[in-house]
Amino acid sequence: MAPTPRRAARRRLQLPLLCLLLQGATAILFAVFVRYNHETDAALWHGGNHSNADNEFYFRYPSFQDVHTMVFVGFGFLMAFLQRYGFSSIGFTFLLAAFALQWSTLVQGFLHSFHGSHIHVGVESMINADFCAGAVLISFGAVLGKTGPAQLLLMALLEVALFGINEFVLLTLLGVKDAGGSMTIHTFGAYFGLVLSRVLYRPQLEKSKHRQGSVYHSDLFAMIGTIFLWIFWPSFNSAPTTLGDGQHRTALNTYYSLTASTLSTFALSALVGKDGRLDMVHIQNAALAGGVVVGTASEMMLTPFGALAAGFLAGTVSTLGYKFFTPVLESKFKVQDTCGVHNLHGMPGVLGALLGVLVAGLATHDAYGDGLQSVFPLMAEGRRSATAQAMYQLFGLFVTLTVASVGGSVGGCLLKLPFLDAPPDSQCYEDQIYWEVPGEHEDEAQGPLRAEELDTQA
Amino acid sequence: MAPTPRRAARRRLQLPLLCLLLQGATAILFAVFVRYNHETDAALWHGGNHSNADNEFYFRYPSFQDVHTMVFVGFGFLMAFLQRYGFSSIGFTFLLAAFALQWSTLVQGFLHSFHGSHIHVGVESMINADFCAGAVLISFGAVLGKTGPAQLLLMALLEVALFGINEFVLLTLLGVKDAGGSMTIHTFGAYFGLVLSRVLYRPQLEKSKHRQGSVYHSDLFAMIGTIFLWIFWPSFNSAPTTLGDGQHRTALNTYYSLTASTLSTFALSALVGKDGRLDMVHIQNAALAGGVVVGTASEMMLTPFGALAAGFLAGTVSTLGYKFFTPVLESKFKVQDTCGVHNLHGMPGVLGALLGVLVAGLATHDAYGDGLQSVFPLMAEGRRSATAQAMYQLFGLFVTLTVASVGGSVGGCLLKLPFLDAPPDSQCYEDQIYWEVPGEHEDEAQGPLRAEELDTQA
Amino acid sequence: MAPTPRRAARRRLQLPLLCLLLQGATAILFAVFVRYNHETDAALWHGGNHSNADNEFYFRYPSFQDVHTMVFVGFGFLMAFLQRYGFSSIGFTFLLAAFALQWSTLVQGFLHSFHGSHIHVGVESMINADFCAGAVLISFGAVLGKTGPAQLLLMALLEVALFGINEFVLLTLLGVKDAGGSMTIHTFGAYFGLVLSRVLYRPQLEKSKHRQGSVYHSDLFAMIGTIFLWIFWPSFNSAPTTLGDGQHRTALNTYYSLTASTLSTFALSALVGKDGRLDMVHIQNAALAGGVVVGTASEMMLTPFGALAAGFLAGTVSTLGYKFFTPVLESKFKVQDTCGVHNLHGMPGVLGALLGVLVAGLATHDAYGDGLQSVFPLMAEGRRSATAQAMYQLFGLFVTLTVASVGGSVGGCLLKLPFLDAPPDSQCYEDQIYWEVPGEHEDEAQGPLRAEELDTQA
Repeated sequence: MAPTPRRAARRRLQLPLLCLLLQGATAILFAVFVRYNHETDAALWHGGNHSNADNEFYFRYPSFQDVHTMVFVGFGFLMAFLQRYGFSSIGFTFLLAAFALQWSTLVQGFLHSFHGSHIHVGVESMINADFCAGAVLISFGAVLGKTGPAQLLLMALLEVALFGINEFVLLTLLGVKDAGGSMTIHTFGAYFGLVLSRVLYRPQLEKSKHRQGSVYHSDLFAMIGTIFLWIFWPSFNSAPTTLGDGQHRTALNTYYSLTASTLSTFALSALVGKDGRLDMVHIQNAALAGGVVVGTASEMMLTPFGALAAGFLAGTVSTLGYKFFTPVLESKFKVQDTCGVHNLHGMPGVLGALLGVLVAGLATHDAYGDGLQSVFPLMAEGRRSATAQAMYQLFGLFVTLTVASVGGSVGGCLLKLPFLDAPPDSQCYEDQIYWEVPGEHEDEAQGPLRAEELDTQA
Repeated sequence: MAPTPRRAARRRLQLPLLCLLLQGATAILFAVFVRYNHETDAALWHGGNHSNADNEFYFRYPSFQDVHTMVFVGFGFLMAFLQRYGFSSIGFTFLLAAFALQWSTLVQGFLHSFHGSHIHVGVESMINADFCAGAVLISFGAVLGKTGPAQLLLMALLEVALFGINEFVLLTLLGVKDAGGSMTIHTFGAYFGLVLSRVLYRPQLEKSKHRQGSVYHSDLFAMIGTIFLWIFWPSFNSAPTTLGDGQHRTALNTYYSLTASTLSTFALSALVGKDGRLDMVHIQNAALAGGVVVGTASEMMLTPFGALAAGFLAGTVSTLGYKFFTPVLESKFKVQDTCGVHNLHGMPGVLGALLGVLVAGLATHDAYGDGLQSVFPLMAEGRRSATAQAMYQLFGLFVTLTVASVGGSVGGCLLKLPFLDAPPDSQCYEDQIYWEVPGEHEDEAQGPLRAEELDTQA
Repeated sequence: MAPTPRRAARRRLQLPLLCLLLQGATAILFAVFVRYNHETDAALWHGGNHSNADNEFYFRYPSFQDVHTMVFVGFGFLMAFLQRYGFSSIGFTFLLAAFALQWSTLVQGFLHSFHGSHIHVGVESMINADFCAGAVLISFGAVLGKTGPAQLLLMALLEVALFGINEFVLLTLLGVKDAGGSMTIHTFGAYFGLVLSRVLYRPQLEKSKHRQGSVYHSDLFAMIGTIFLWIFWPSFNSAPTTLGDGQHRTALNTYYSLTASTLSTFALSALVGKDGRLDMVHIQNAALAGGVVVGTASEMMLTPFGALAAGFLAGTVSTLGYKFFTPVLESKFKVQDTCGVHNLHGMPGVLGALLGVLVAGLATHDAYGDGLQSVFPLMAEGRRSATAQAMYQLFGLFVTLTVASVGGSVGGCLLKLPFLDAPPDSQCYEDQIYWEVPGEHEDEAQGPLRAEELDTQA
């Protein structure tokens, strides 16, 4: 049975119209509000008394590029592990992140850098927009394969706004520290996506079961994503920290934490695997948990040993989560979490927030010296004790979980709007609904569904 | 029928001899002319009164590495979309670019940094050589699959020389601004390649039609190229600009422009696609047009909105070009443009040049302040009005189109020299002519042509 | 026949226990000994009178990230050329390197930066640890496919220790210069691995012959590794050199050398190939020899021409080695060198050491000016003549070859311990022993060995 004419017309128009509408709206808002800041504006920069070497560009742009690589290459390829969903994983990552960068520049700009009725942009706004895109892609991981691009754009529209608000509450109102985003990015993105996935629960999803796994080559593509995320995570956590020792220490802590999560992931994966074999899903994902878990604390005086211990714990929890908790999440809680974001971002994010509580609570003037001003300015100014800062950190986690859960519920209802073109249960994890997939050459009959077949099943 | 002995001998010797000859010639020229500049020479650098932190290396090397990634990873994998031509796409990119870097160091050195009978080299010459290699690879995209490596090396030999001359005329003689190379790189590379492809027109090319498309995996490999080009394009356009606000603003504008071309590409691709499906060719290519279109203007006070608008336009034009103009280009104009470089580099390059005309024409002392000296030095010194600068920019486009077209014609005639080993019409887009392709393992009978088959067809 | 219960239990426990043991040990050593240095410690940095811009982070971190990419992406994917060993190539690279980073931080720390009973860490220790991981991965290349992960971890345990000692003898005791590690990394890693592979010689290895080659796609994955190694090699050699002209010149020399080794590799590969066809093995590997060969000399006043000549020679020797020497190495010397590390790291490493002897011997006060202090401090202080320095360089090569050979022998005996789970001769180059390999979807019957088949053969 061919798609009904109405459905075909909807499919043809929904994504284009939404893209054009969103692009038109952000363009107008850019025209009205967005201006170069004093480091990117020719007149303002040259009007100041600067050396070119002082331009923030030289301190943050290399880190920005690493973050940018993580968002587009890392997340995109990591999600390409599905055998027939590589075009969508990489392509929709591309689309969602491109939109999120624009929209987040506006949202974050209104909240963080709105001066004299204008948003001022430069390399810091680029980094922050990429961070927000990262959160959107984490949520994408939870619903991967079960949503269409128009649905995903609407999800991003909502999530970016809530991300900005949550981040504003934590960083500005509560004075919480969270440079690498254990809370604002990982916890937020994961629980937003998980709750949303709960609302979109599909009891008949086993109809697409045969496409839900990987094949040999798709696992290698996914490793491209894993490795680029792993190597650049030190830049991710350090990109927005204070200059000098701050960036340096953050990168170093993250580097150690990741080595430990890799070792614990290999250990646990073999231990719980069939016949002691390693599972690619664990290696691709849980090995990265060391980056997530120090997102809050890597900026602090965590110590190299602390980084190793945190990473080790995160890799362990994450691997065990993939093995034992993901099945329960679906069967008991009706949350279908395609990429296991609960294991990679959810639990390690919460652990990271708690680690931040602990390390903040242990902070002393002795340990930080004059550097206390950079890491905990409110403590340095005597306006907060270490214990108070720790309590604020904990409250920040609570706020994040609340905003993410409420937001995910609202998002799920939004995405269920009947006119949105979601894939049928039997067509999940399948590129051919949204992409012209090349015919394999003659002798390779085992290619993806042929077009007729697809239409019949739809 | 096996290849004739003469043909086999020619094949064996042609590429090696040409490589050795070219390498020998550039080595001799390096020995005679190329010297370290004052930032790379131990005695000169330490003779000056510098802080090590002032060394240009720290301001440009991270951007250089991004450009280097684009040239070798970006272009190489982007062209690996063909099902049986991955070795050649990536391998010949590697060969051509490696030669172009050496040869361009000499050509650009003679024209730009020849002092006291020596060429002086450092990170800026590395960036400029990579830019020139980029132009050669754009042209390679137009003739991909239809030329042998010896032909391609000769093409590079000619194109690098003409690239250097064109660039010298524009930047030095005409005082045209073109940091990211909308004209000097994209327009030049595209029209050089297109005219060359016209001269090499093959009326019987449909004999290789079955190899001209992609397969599922080759499209994923191509996306590696696309994404690395996309993420690093801000570094490409900003690598050679003035330090400080110049680099910073250029990167920012390019970043915005690319997000908009991505959104318009997705919108248009679905709009014109069969059943509203997205086409990987568009996503792989047209989404990048936002980087091309701001190659000239991103250094200027384009404004963030201007960047979005330009990127949106470029993605639209490029996608429509792939859909509607590429077929006409072959049927009416007899230009067989394998990668659609006309859509990605040609039209967006020309648009980018025109955008540069516009933005230069609108430049005011107010908008640039003391920064005018960096962007438009001739205007700052009162030697040119904004309108005059705009006219020079337009004239630069005209010069580029002329040099590229004449050069492409000459190049095409050169590559038709009968002793050069071009693939037969039935063997285009096929690695096995130039590479030992591994036998697939037994059960995978559908692998590339087996050797006997190939010889029979040749 | 299913694996015996004892063997299955051993397999299940060996890797996890070793991982946990090693991680536990390094964590304890970290807790006791490793501390932030004055650039990563909040109190120490802010106690000093620094500008944040002076922090070493800004001078070395971008290069570090390039090196990090080479180690994890470059080596990992380069070794993924085998048709059924991609998971292991990339996965074990990941595991080995992660462990080596921790362990090497300790070993190098004790030898190089042990002050006041503590090891002090920062970006330089990160770079040095990555360098050591690179040497381990070179050795891994020699035994690829013939060793299990527990064996490899033990190899790394030994090799990292010996690497640190050899490096300490050369750089600190002998005053040898070797920034990019022609000796300490490439020669050491290659001969350690080759001797170890000799000890592990398997006369029955042809039982796995059918898995020893590549398939079309695996060669493309390997090219990801090649190209990332190639583009970032200038950062590798320059990462640890003196700031300013030192880093700048080293990067420039390496860049030229690599272009020349690429041209000579293409020339020689076609010249010696069947029917003049290029061989992917050469392109993937020998083209990189230009980076190895200037590992010692690129920091010196090698001249751009010298870099080209060295690279050309290295590419030639390496390609001829793959064609003519690798078969002899197995048949005559009983060394089974899976990746041909003798051709890429061994011979070019030795050549690089000799080039260092030559260029050091030719050093004059005139050529280096006041920069002599940075490159050859002992010569600048009048404590050594150029000839003496050259002799020390030569002696450093001798020491390296000795330590590597003795170490490789010891390592080989260690890895032969009977309780270590090595793959049987018929199961080499096969992921399924150590990994849960996804079942290909139904129509793709040609996937890797099915589990029953594997058990029967084991």
